[in-house]
Amino acid sequence: MSTQPVLIDGEWQTSAGTETFAASNPGLETDLPEQYPVSSWDEVAVCVAAAARASQQMRGWPGQRFAEFLECYAERLDQNADALVAIAAAETALPAAPRLKDVELPRTTGQLRQAAAAARDGSWSEPTIDTATNIRSMLGPLGPVIVFGPNNFPFAFNGIAGGDFAAAVAAGNPVIAKGHSSHPGTTRLMAVEAQAAAGETDMPAGFVQLIYRTSHSDGARMVAQPAVGAVGYTGSRQAGLVIKEAADRVGTPAYLELSSINPVFVLPGALSERMEAIAEDFTTSCLMGTGQFCTNPGLVVLLRSDHSDAFLKSVATRFQDAPVGTLLSAGVQRNFADGIAQLLEAGAVLETGGQTGGGRGVSYSNTLLSTDGSAFLGAPEQMQTEAFGNSSLFVVAEDPEQMLAIADALEGNLTGTIYSHTAEADDSLYDRIAPVLRERVGRLLNDKMPTGVAVSAAMNHGGPFPATGHPGFTAVGMPSSIRRFSSLWCYDGVRPHRLPAALKDQNPNGTLWRNVDGNLTQADVTAGC
Amino acid sequence: MSTQPVLIDGEWQTSAGTETFAASNPGLETDLPEQYPVSSWDEVAVCVAAAARASQQMRGWPGQRFAEFLECYAERLDQNADALVAIAAAETALPAAPRLKDVELPRTTGQLRQAAAAARDGSWSEPTIDTATNIRSMLGPLGPVIVFGPNNFPFAFNGIAGGDFAAAVAAGNPVIAKGHSSHPGTTRLMAVEAQAAAGETDMPAGFVQLIYRTSHSDGARMVAQPAVGAVGYTGSRQAGLVIKEAADRVGTPAYLELSSINPVFVLPGALSERMEAIAEDFTTSCLMGTGQFCTNPGLVVLLRSDHSDAFLKSVATRFQDAPVGTLLSAGVQRNFADGIAQLLEAGAVLETGGQTGGGRGVSYSNTLLSTDGSAFLGAPEQMQTEAFGNSSLFVVAEDPEQMLAIADALEGNLTGTIYSHTAEADDSLYDRIAPVLRERVGRLLNDKMPTGVAVSAAMNHGGPFPATGHPGFTAVGMPSSIRRFSSLWCYDGVRPHRLPAALKDQNPNGTLWRNVDGNLTQADVTAGC
Repeated sequence: MSTQPVLIDGEWQTSAGTETFAASNPGLETDLPEQYPVSSWDEVAVCVAAAARASQQMRGWPGQRFAEFLECYAERLDQNADALVAIAAAETALPAAPRLKDVELPRTTGQLRQAAAAARDGSWSEPTIDTATNIRSMLGPLGPVIVFGPNNFPFAFNGIAGGDFAAAVAAGNPVIAKGHSSHPGTTRLMAVEAQAAAGETDMPAGFVQLIYRTSHSDGARMVAQPAVGAVGYTGSRQAGLVIKEAADRVGTPAYLELSSINPVFVLPGALSERMEAIAEDFTTSCLMGTGQFCTNPGLVVLLRSDHSDAFLKSVATRFQDAPVGTLLSAGVQRNFADGIAQLLEAGAVLETGGQTGGGRGVSYSNTLLSTDGSAFLGAPEQMQTEAFGNSSLFVVAEDPEQMLAIADALEGNLTGTIYSHTAEADDSLYDRIAPVLRERVGRLLNDKMPTGVAVSAAMNHGGPFPATGHPGFTAVGMPSSIRRFSSLWCYDGVRPHRLPAALKDQNPNGTLWRNVDGNLTQADVTAGC
Repeated sequence: MSTQPVLIDGEWQTSAGTETFAASNPGLETDLPEQYPVSSWDEVAVCVAAAARASQQMRGWPGQRFAEFLECYAERLDQNADALVAIAAAETALPAAPRLKDVELPRTTGQLRQAAAAARDGSWSEPTIDTATNIRSMLGPLGPVIVFGPNNFPFAFNGIAGGDFAAAVAAGNPVIAKGHSSHPGTTRLMAVEAQAAAGETDMPAGFVQLIYRTSHSDGARMVAQPAVGAVGYTGSRQAGLVIKEAADRVGTPAYLELSSINPVFVLPGALSERMEAIAEDFTTSCLMGTGQFCTNPGLVVLLRSDHSDAFLKSVATRFQDAPVGTLLSAGVQRNFADGIAQLLEAGAVLETGGQTGGGRGVSYSNTLLSTDGSAFLGAPEQMQTEAFGNSSLFVVAEDPEQMLAIADALEGNLTGTIYSHTAEADDSLYDRIAPVLRERVGRLLNDKMPTGVAVSAAMNHGGPFPATGHPGFTAVGMPSSIRRFSSLWCYDGVRPHRLPAALKDQNPNGTLWRNVDGNLTQADVTAGC
């Protein structure tokens, strides 16, 4: 059969690439029939040039234009929900419902609509006006954004539809999506709707583009092109660091989500108070989506006591009793097994699991490992190996000091969680651990598991390196996520009729928040201001 | 005589380094008597460890504490103005007045006081509260910041007192200052006041530290230490890129100001209308501070006409008639001469100047070069060589299309300026050039030279790479400059008494702006919100 086309410069085109690949159905362990192209360098170059042209054509466009596209696109995705869910379920083995249909797709279209609202309102761009000097500034687009989507959220983080896509478009940029190789059919179907929405809303050719795969060297070369404004990446640390290096070398901002084991500290008071409830919470969170969440709790730190032993046993039993889920791909299974092997090699002990198989299709048994505080602190780096899948490592500390030392030895993570006694029994230990954990994570949680990521303005789905590439940015939550894909534009003494609408004296829509002479206001700038 | 001590861990200590250096008086071309140490690696490591301890001790401190330090420090600098101006004038040959005493020092203490006000108010930290999900976030400190100061602003960009220092402290971070080797005495005197202010306001040892010089490899090693939170750098592109690479490799944010030639487009209507006035404006701006401003207009683009020839001649005459200033150091003179040589080699023609000497002490004649549009476009990279000093290159384009092509060939710059006819005669050409220039500069100016950098919330003293390392940030202007040195801290379901004051329901000071459920407000969070 023929190879699927790529979306370049406004057209679905036959790829110039000569190699192809197929996705597989991990639940059935069979290859899916469609072939997808590996794009050649020439094709990538055409794609970047088209995005640069689109960027130029959109210069000065109001946020309204991008809002219209985003809303039209969200509507089209909703209308095609059944087809999208069917192909995503086949390519990822994630449950069609509730996960894909009732949770992830609504989240995705919700993100697109939140981005539309932010683009229409414009307050994300932080317009700032100093009337005394007549200097005015705001955030503006920075040019074509390349978005690399991950394997684990075929909709909500998809390069052509997810959070980075929505944020980059809301800031006024064209997007080149690099689809993930494990769900190219889902990505293609979304891109069909994206391109249709772009046509309906009169966006330029090259505004949204899709390629499926390149060679590793062409991928690095692509992000280093002078026309590229920024990069969004979610995926493995290893591949991400290659992208980061290529972008860094040419001074291109790259926002990367690389890895996280999301430590959970269960303090002794909480354990004595509600051990079984926490075991249940933990098991549900850790095995959800077969453990393939960026915020999966892969490390649990306990203080040694009778309760800690009982807790470990309770979780082990739950892991044995729980069904074994299907993994996203044979590659995930292989990396997962490698991760477990590295943890064992570092001295972790297998409590349960540790076997390939056990579930439908590509799978690996629910796996619980344990170690003690001294062993963890003896090899902190290896003990923090990310085993992406349905597993976790429990570390049992001898005393509070050791628990604190473990917190201090943690790498940067997306999240950090502390369960404590509902009254104040754990408060003094909490007060020692929380400040140390605070600096090592993006989101600090109390008494709940980290796997739920609300799309909220207050969310931080980011964290210190190596969880991401920069501690000050979030990939989820508007307007912060939009600001990543912007540059700061300052106008000094620029004549009034030449200013962007957001910086003219009159507030363009009455809702735009602006900093005028140090005061946040939605009012017009007046002579007496 | 003995070597000056370094400021490490709260004490002025004898340096462990065995090498020393002296600064020179560029006006007299003599070495100054004091010897300053080149710190050893061990000393640098002690310094980083002390900063990390200070960072831990200051965890959770309110902005008020940093405001008190900043204000005390500013007051002390004002009190010691005469001594500071005297040593800075000796080390840099910049005029004691008005430049150092009446402009740069007041700007510096003004920056420190603006940073204090921002720290006290707290709105820079963008507190965001989502009551529906009980997720709350704000920007917090990120750890020790290393600030590398440049040679050209001994006060306002000094590593121990300038904009990066003020911003890093306002965000709640300790600072390790790497003083510039050309004005170590000025830096030492400022650090004496900084340390005294730290003592008076009960800051921890290691909150402010000063070293003067390291080996190049130790400098790169220092920024790559895990305890370092971020880096601020202003200086040469070559040294800056070494720092950037070292920081990028370990995922440490580095904010760098690297180079800029600050293109000025003079449109034909403006030239026919007010040629002599623009020539006067330009000459003043270009020769100010002997051309050693980051925003010095080093490239002027004209359209060929009788007026363009006359303009070139007028400026050349003014350059010949103007006194030749003193350069900051023999190194600056050497690099300046190299830059001129590279421009000549690329095909630029010498209109006037081009000779070492001509002024008091270390100097180089006021130098004007010219070329035509074709020659510029034939070697755009070499033609954009930064010759840091009292020189500029005039490019005469044949037609509007070539002028536009020149704009399109520009690298990232801090500023871009367009002079146009006061009525609408140049508007159509402006409308073609401005959007292209907009994307290549941080600050776009109309009808004024770029050398004035107001310390305003609306200022952007930044720009696309290679002018800086990131197009979204400014080194001047609060609160934006403060946000560079912060990480995003999110609290998910964290119990009310454990939240930072800025995120509790009650507004801590009544002036703090917070985003509560999508609305910017200074009110408390109420149950009915």
